[in-house]
Amino acid sequence: MKRVCIIGCGSIGSLYAAHLARVTETWAYVRRPEHARALNEYGISVTGTHEFHTKLRATTDPREMPEFDLAIVASKATQTAEALGPVAHLFKKGAILSSQNGLGSEEVIAALADTYVIRGTTFMSGTRHTDTHVQYELDTATWMGPFEPTKTPFALVKEAAELIASSGLKAVALEDARPAQWSKLIFNSSVNSVAALTELPHSFHFAEEKDFDDLGHLLHALMEEGKSVAARLGVKLYEDPWEMNKVGAQTDHPPSMLYDIRHKLKTEIDFLGGAIAREAARAGIPAPLHTALYRLIKGKEESWTYESKSRPAAK
Amino acid sequence: MKRVCIIGCGSIGSLYAAHLARVTETWAYVRRPEHARALNEYGISVTGTHEFHTKLRATTDPREMPEFDLAIVASKATQTAEALGPVAHLFKKGAILSSQNGLGSEEVIAALADTYVIRGTTFMSGTRHTDTHVQYELDTATWMGPFEPTKTPFALVKEAAELIASSGLKAVALEDARPAQWSKLIFNSSVNSVAALTELPHSFHFAEEKDFDDLGHLLHALMEEGKSVAARLGVKLYEDPWEMNKVGAQTDHPPSMLYDIRHKLKTEIDFLGGAIAREAARAGIPAPLHTALYRLIKGKEESWTYESKSRPAAK
Repeated sequence: MKRVCIIGCGSIGSLYAAHLARVTETWAYVRRPEHARALNEYGISVTGTHEFHTKLRATTDPREMPEFDLAIVASKATQTAEALGPVAHLFKKGAILSSQNGLGSEEVIAALADTYVIRGTTFMSGTRHTDTHVQYELDTATWMGPFEPTKTPFALVKEAAELIASSGLKAVALEDARPAQWSKLIFNSSVNSVAALTELPHSFHFAEEKDFDDLGHLLHALMEEGKSVAARLGVKLYEDPWEMNKVGAQTDHPPSMLYDIRHKLKTEIDFLGGAIAREAARAGIPAPLHTALYRLIKGKEESWTYESKSRPAAK
Repeated sequence: MKRVCIIGCGSIGSLYAAHLARVTETWAYVRRPEHARALNEYGISVTGTHEFHTKLRATTDPREMPEFDLAIVASKATQTAEALGPVAHLFKKGAILSSQNGLGSEEVIAALADTYVIRGTTFMSGTRHTDTHVQYELDTATWMGPFEPTKTPFALVKEAAELIASSGLKAVALEDARPAQWSKLIFNSSVNSVAALTELPHSFHFAEEKDFDDLGHLLHALMEEGKSVAARLGVKLYEDPWEMNKVGAQTDHPPSMLYDIRHKLKTEIDFLGGAIAREAARAGIPAPLHTALYRLIKGKEESWTYESKSRPAAK
């Protein structure tokens, strides 16, 4: 794999782009012209867990772009079609890896691009300070495996994982990536939904189980429900989401959906709790808690634009 | 019953005070001196469904107050002890009616005052425009019955109901007021919790059940859950909360808890969804949805004061 394209350069996309640019020809396909200009002129600075500066190519114009051996889609799950659509034809001889949150992005990618798709889940975390500066935080792996419907050869997955590993990031090729994806999905959907509705960051409350009204009981119940959906769908989990939650609850990290809610941006709920709720409904498996929180967050999004005919709030 | 005291003059308290002042000696016991002053100087104007002006006595000082035949506690359920405590000794020869939201206020009143307690539920609604002007909206009944632990004679309940009815408001004395209280409780807790978490008023979304993500499914499930808790506690319902919801969802009325959330005021969740969750837990009855929403709203209240150690929201 000689030429790589990163689609979407938020914090995760910027981390992939910067690291890969050190070992192979790397392009960034971005939405804003000033973002592309800054990347072309300055490159990317990584600080934190890794510290370096690197140059790369960036553009907003598909006509300037060659064909690629690998794409990594790192946009928000809600923006996959918009981000990948205009360049989807450039990966026919290669493969496309989704590193996005939740469930369902691979299906969107496979519908847009006639190529091999790789199911990916990343636990890396970072903070994007500017268009050209990203801070690397958790140095954890990208788990990847064949997306079943495109019959992606495992050798291709291994090649992509080796390329990512050679760039200094962690990557693991798995024959079946669904256990990894579902482990993170259950963790992520539970924590993000509760953060979105309470507007608490991933604080100690999420693991507190002393009193009847403690939030930890709800997180625990959401994760048990997610695990039972996974089990009944035949997906064995990779890690226990509740253990992941206990660690995360010590960080006060603001989950991405909390950021979205605070800024009234469409959330990824359809790919997180909504994906669990829908998969469960399709298979006739009960998932009342994920379903309830999914509908509340859809209602919350609706409230931003709903023109109420009512007077100001009163009794 | 010759002398009545209204404790707390929000919209509901103001409606009771103004109507009762037309037919009997009526006092308002309020918290703010300027509120008492305005009521003493001007009285109360009622507009809307009823239109009149009336004078009454108001004070913030228990030492100025005589003994009463009837008190109506109309404060928020969260403020019962604070509102009633200083005057609780003035009702020993009479009775105290709670017209508050939810479940649990009668217990608080009975613990504070050595007298008969009347279990009340009101469906009246109004908007309080100023300290001395309240707009009367829904002209619906106060349902009232004996609070069982104080062995309140039914004759006393009837006397209180007749007094309220003679003032122009609707009132119904019931041998058992729990069916009425639980009907409103289930309706109120479901609608308030969903409004608090989505920040939608009681809009059409609350009855919408076409698509998988529609909020009406959640309201329906909350009400079914509440009904099953009531049934297993042996309480037969007075009205179907789902039918009440379908009517309410056409009003865009902002439920009181939505007002609280918008103004970061402690909500009545402990007396609404929290009361259903705790009663169910005590009796070993499952109530996962009310319990989940209860914990989310407690988490939301917590977020207003939680000093996060985290940086601004990022990925």
